[in-house]
Amino acid sequence: MVQASLKAKRDGVGYRTKVPRNVNMENLQNGYLFSEISRCKLQHIEKFPNAKLISLGVGDTTEPLPDIIASSMAEYALALSTPEGYRGYGPEQGYEALRKAIAESFYKDISVKDTEIFVTDGSQCDITRLQLVLGANVTIAVQDPSYPVYQDSSIIIGQAGNYKDEALKCRNIEYMRCSPQNNFFPDLDTTSRADIIFFCSPNNPTGHAATRKQLEKLVEFARNNGSIIIFDSAYASYIMDDSPRSIFEIPGAREVAIEVSSFSKLAGFTGVRLGWTVVPEELLFSNGFPVRNDFDRIVCTCFSGASNIAQAGGLACLSSEGLKATESMVQYYMENARILVDTFTSLGLEVYGGANAPYVWVRFPGSKSWDVFSEILEKTHIITAPGSGFGAGGEEFLRISAYGNRKCILEASRRLGSFFS
Amino acid sequence: MVQASLKAKRDGVGYRTKVPRNVNMENLQNGYLFSEISRCKLQHIEKFPNAKLISLGVGDTTEPLPDIIASSMAEYALALSTPEGYRGYGPEQGYEALRKAIAESFYKDISVKDTEIFVTDGSQCDITRLQLVLGANVTIAVQDPSYPVYQDSSIIIGQAGNYKDEALKCRNIEYMRCSPQNNFFPDLDTTSRADIIFFCSPNNPTGHAATRKQLEKLVEFARNNGSIIIFDSAYASYIMDDSPRSIFEIPGAREVAIEVSSFSKLAGFTGVRLGWTVVPEELLFSNGFPVRNDFDRIVCTCFSGASNIAQAGGLACLSSEGLKATESMVQYYMENARILVDTFTSLGLEVYGGANAPYVWVRFPGSKSWDVFSEILEKTHIITAPGSGFGAGGEEFLRISAYGNRKCILEASRRLGSFFS
Repeated sequence: MVQASLKAKRDGVGYRTKVPRNVNMENLQNGYLFSEISRCKLQHIEKFPNAKLISLGVGDTTEPLPDIIASSMAEYALALSTPEGYRGYGPEQGYEALRKAIAESFYKDISVKDTEIFVTDGSQCDITRLQLVLGANVTIAVQDPSYPVYQDSSIIIGQAGNYKDEALKCRNIEYMRCSPQNNFFPDLDTTSRADIIFFCSPNNPTGHAATRKQLEKLVEFARNNGSIIIFDSAYASYIMDDSPRSIFEIPGAREVAIEVSSFSKLAGFTGVRLGWTVVPEELLFSNGFPVRNDFDRIVCTCFSGASNIAQAGGLACLSSEGLKATESMVQYYMENARILVDTFTSLGLEVYGGANAPYVWVRFPGSKSWDVFSEILEKTHIITAPGSGFGAGGEEFLRISAYGNRKCILEASRRLGSFFS
Repeated sequence: MVQASLKAKRDGVGYRTKVPRNVNMENLQNGYLFSEISRCKLQHIEKFPNAKLISLGVGDTTEPLPDIIASSMAEYALALSTPEGYRGYGPEQGYEALRKAIAESFYKDISVKDTEIFVTDGSQCDITRLQLVLGANVTIAVQDPSYPVYQDSSIIIGQAGNYKDEALKCRNIEYMRCSPQNNFFPDLDTTSRADIIFFCSPNNPTGHAATRKQLEKLVEFARNNGSIIIFDSAYASYIMDDSPRSIFEIPGAREVAIEVSSFSKLAGFTGVRLGWTVVPEELLFSNGFPVRNDFDRIVCTCFSGASNIAQAGGLACLSSEGLKATESMVQYYMENARILVDTFTSLGLEVYGGANAPYVWVRFPGSKSWDVFSEILEKTHIITAPGSGFGAGGEEFLRISAYGNRKCILEASRRLGSFFS
């Protein structure tokens, strides 16, 4: 049998298993947005090997870590070679000291307990772990446009069904349009009930931070419908005004919300990998079972805890020196955002975001996002992110990331200025 | 509405969402085995606060990392605070240098390409990612006994159905009994076809390393049935004889197998978190679609790459100095295993494993595993792992982990000697 199959292979027939491909994976017709953007980038480099490419596409941090954070991780790593400092498996939910520090740093006045905080390798991964908890038989709503992982993970777990149209909307997803017309907050009167509402603030990609009033409406809507909000606050540290930095600032949220968050953008940990998820004790499924218990089971069974070195770095971030240092990194990127906002504004374009978020959301009326993306790449060697990659509601827009070294941002601004004028 | 609900809460009624609990999670009736063991440990400490507890339960590494590995990670972490050394997101599949080093170190003579290797945060996590690729509509077979994550992840993704009996066997899982009677290799003539065959060698918990002949039979069985083998080689570095260290040593395996592996036990990375998965290009679903492409999509969408510091450590492990150092760690634990094998053998017990694996598998005829576990804990303050926690086929057995400082192992040996004699 083996010989026959190997012969078939040589004959070009090719052995196939009898295992059916997962229909959910078949439903994912396009590639993951940021992989697609990377592919365009590589093609461009091949075509223009000498061009000085500037990447404002994937929102990736560029500035060195503060010394205190890097040296804490280095010390921890070195100590792993000593009998006193060696650590094997840590608690799957994260070390208690870090869970307590997160509770103290971000949730002090809103009484989130450390036992409700799960330390993980990032919010992108937590979204899938939450989908594993929820399973295929719930319905979801997403903002349109939104971070593609909500929809993609929903398709993968089997909630979403297949695409119903060319704009890659799924049959079973409720899309909540967020546009300049509605101040980037969905019209909840016309929104159908869904079990799960993904909501991101400050928003990726639009850069809009939801106001307190908007979030109060959202929580009320969830409570009226018995829905669970999965609130993505990965960019909370970029809020410069008094918009809520956590959904748990809103009364009544503890019984209807989960929060996913991250050190990636807070502290430049995109490569170090560290995040957390808050699941309040009061959050119950319809049968009264605590959601927290099921998430804990998934974290223990499908995950083994975040790297202990990364956790040591997280703890250093939350020291008073660390917090000060990460705040000045945030300010650095926000100054970039201001430069980009000014650039596009001075070109007469419609510009959103950039005030409470490291993303600038620019409209190109009448144009397709991917066309503008390609044209800017071809002519200015700047990578952006096409708005339509975040959903139909992002068509005509580009997302411009403010992550980058200041020199690159200024150079990008110069190139964009000459291209558009 | 919010006010009314908050009042209901105060009145002790308690707000519930209308989101149904996932039936797959409901099917997971017991806790994750190693969490259960940890709970027993904590209860014991409470009861005997002064006892000198020795933990041979969870297979957790205890010896400090070799200097070269720790210092490489420390250097990498420190460099993250410099403009030259800072790195943001890495490739989701892992850095090319590490993928190449893994290919070179473990798969040199069996031509696995670096592009077929996905670097991740560990094989426990990869098993769930593979389940996401496969989805609910495939059938699985597991060895009995086996590492509980195979069955648990299968229940979570919805393949397994609920438990059909008190031994916690699932309705839709094919159990392949592995016992001393069949030299720990299933009788494939009486094994029903399953789409997916989980197979672990050297085996957790029995400590048996499958022979070349056994693995040839397994590959032939998979090919005849069009099945996919998910081969767990996390303990391959403990093989001391000429048993295959990779399923890809077997001709014909590339078209029917995936391999998950890990730095956890190879290099003491249980807390650092680093592993890898090999998905050969030739592995195809029944419709001809490459499994590798779907795994790549999951890795990009549901994961963001392993911590870059851990990857730097992995690279150091695979330097010639690193390989030598990790080999002596493995030898250290294997000497522990020999001590434990001798201890139980001299007590007249039936003892397996410990020759090609850091686990010793001891039979207590006529006894329930959990009873022996409790008795040993109560009387000797030694934590073990009850065999029945790994499946019905593990009843009457205990798994003894050889991970531990030599002093602890010798002390455990002494205590066990006096308890049983």
